[in-house]
Amino acid sequence: MPKANPTACLLVIGNEVLSGRTRDANIQFLATGLGNLGIPLREVRVIPDVPETIIATVNEVRPKFTYVFTTGGIGPTHDDITSECIAAAFGVPWEHHPVAWPRMQASYKPGEFNAARQRMATMPRGAALIENSISVAPGFQMENVYVMAGVPRIMQSMFEWLAPRLEGGAKIEMRAVHVLGLPEGIIAEGLGEVQKRYPELDLGSYPFYRASGNGVALVAKGPDGEQAEKAIAEVTELIIGFGKVPVPGEPPEV
Amino acid sequence: MPKANPTACLLVIGNEVLSGRTRDANIQFLATGLGNLGIPLREVRVIPDVPETIIATVNEVRPKFTYVFTTGGIGPTHDDITSECIAAAFGVPWEHHPVAWPRMQASYKPGEFNAARQRMATMPRGAALIENSISVAPGFQMENVYVMAGVPRIMQSMFEWLAPRLEGGAKIEMRAVHVLGLPEGIIAEGLGEVQKRYPELDLGSYPFYRASGNGVALVAKGPDGEQAEKAIAEVTELIIGFGKVPVPGEPPEV
Repeated sequence: MPKANPTACLLVIGNEVLSGRTRDANIQFLATGLGNLGIPLREVRVIPDVPETIIATVNEVRPKFTYVFTTGGIGPTHDDITSECIAAAFGVPWEHHPVAWPRMQASYKPGEFNAARQRMATMPRGAALIENSISVAPGFQMENVYVMAGVPRIMQSMFEWLAPRLEGGAKIEMRAVHVLGLPEGIIAEGLGEVQKRYPELDLGSYPFYRASGNGVALVAKGPDGEQAEKAIAEVTELIIGFGKVPVPGEPPEV
Repeated sequence: MPKANPTACLLVIGNEVLSGRTRDANIQFLATGLGNLGIPLREVRVIPDVPETIIATVNEVRPKFTYVFTTGGIGPTHDDITSECIAAAFGVPWEHHPVAWPRMQASYKPGEFNAARQRMATMPRGAALIENSISVAPGFQMENVYVMAGVPRIMQSMFEWLAPRLEGGAKIEMRAVHVLGLPEGIIAEGLGEVQKRYPELDLGSYPFYRASGNGVALVAKGPDGEQAEKAIAEVTELIIGFGKVPVPGEPPEV
């Protein structure tokens, strides 16, 4: 992967993923969406609703990555503390947002813009809004930190709004081949040799176990699609050399 | 959550989750399994197959948590580098394991215990094996670090073997109630009051959006089931106070 590509870190904030109550759905969506923009996701952290942890983690990662995205903790309830923690991390006041506050106030019937909902219009000073088409409550950006909702369809809407506004890099191209009945341990050595010949690529081997048969998916990724194609052609020759049948592409989901 | 409970951190090692190719299935399984043992999962990190990152992360988290679990990177291919990185993190040689080596050697036909497979029997000096019923290649333990496979069914088999050997704490009890058509922003204030009356509990509010109707799940967690029950009874009264129908338990999956 060329050094020129921007990088991303994702912070999944919330006890519900750590307790196993919720199976996270945001990591894969953002990993894919960011990859398509040429912004490889380099680290994910799932952290609890604990102020010291959120503040320290945000401040640890924001100088290390081009972009930091957070999901979760910006709703109206007592455990939604991401917003005030971001303010604390940046050392700025947490206050009525000049755009979000009047807009949210206007969207509720008189008396319904209560203290809980007012929290969603209270943001770190200087926050730029991240819009979405589902909820009246926006996310926000502070420097390279992008604070989004945890509810997948709201987060996805925020990311769709955000994507054309992010500066990406060379798109990561992917080519793949798979094979049934060829153990990883047999193809590993040859695969390592191919990886050595294509140091710019990231060559991965992923065994799968399915009722339709066990096998391995071999995947080449990198900014140069032609290189990835060449590497996969060499892997295909390897498979043929072991007397097996290579199947282009990734194994279908079953 | 009482201070006495042990804590856990999970490191998901591998480019395939960060690239979006694979949707992680191990976080939720381990979060639930560890919760049942009274070992709350307090942090998850998904990190790439980069030696410096793996080594630094392992050494950063192992003094901070009672248990550290890793998944991924212990297969036979060139990108399976977890094992040698653990050896480097502990500053010990990476060598033929006295039990795993002869056992794996015996399990293959003559000539098939090749260099790639030998890597799976090579471990940090002093490693204790973690057995599984699916693959001949074991995981291993170094002090409080438990190194497991990334393939979900192998990881699950390793965790099942491991679970009775881990020292747990008070099981985390959970009680829940849900309601349709009551926005989070309306119930939030009352919910915050209930949380204040039960500081030992972790009270969460999780909106859901489904074809069958939108609503919110209200969940109380803690080591004392009776307390959790009382808190949820108070939340149930709140719901009735807003003229809505409380439904015991979590909303069914649809």
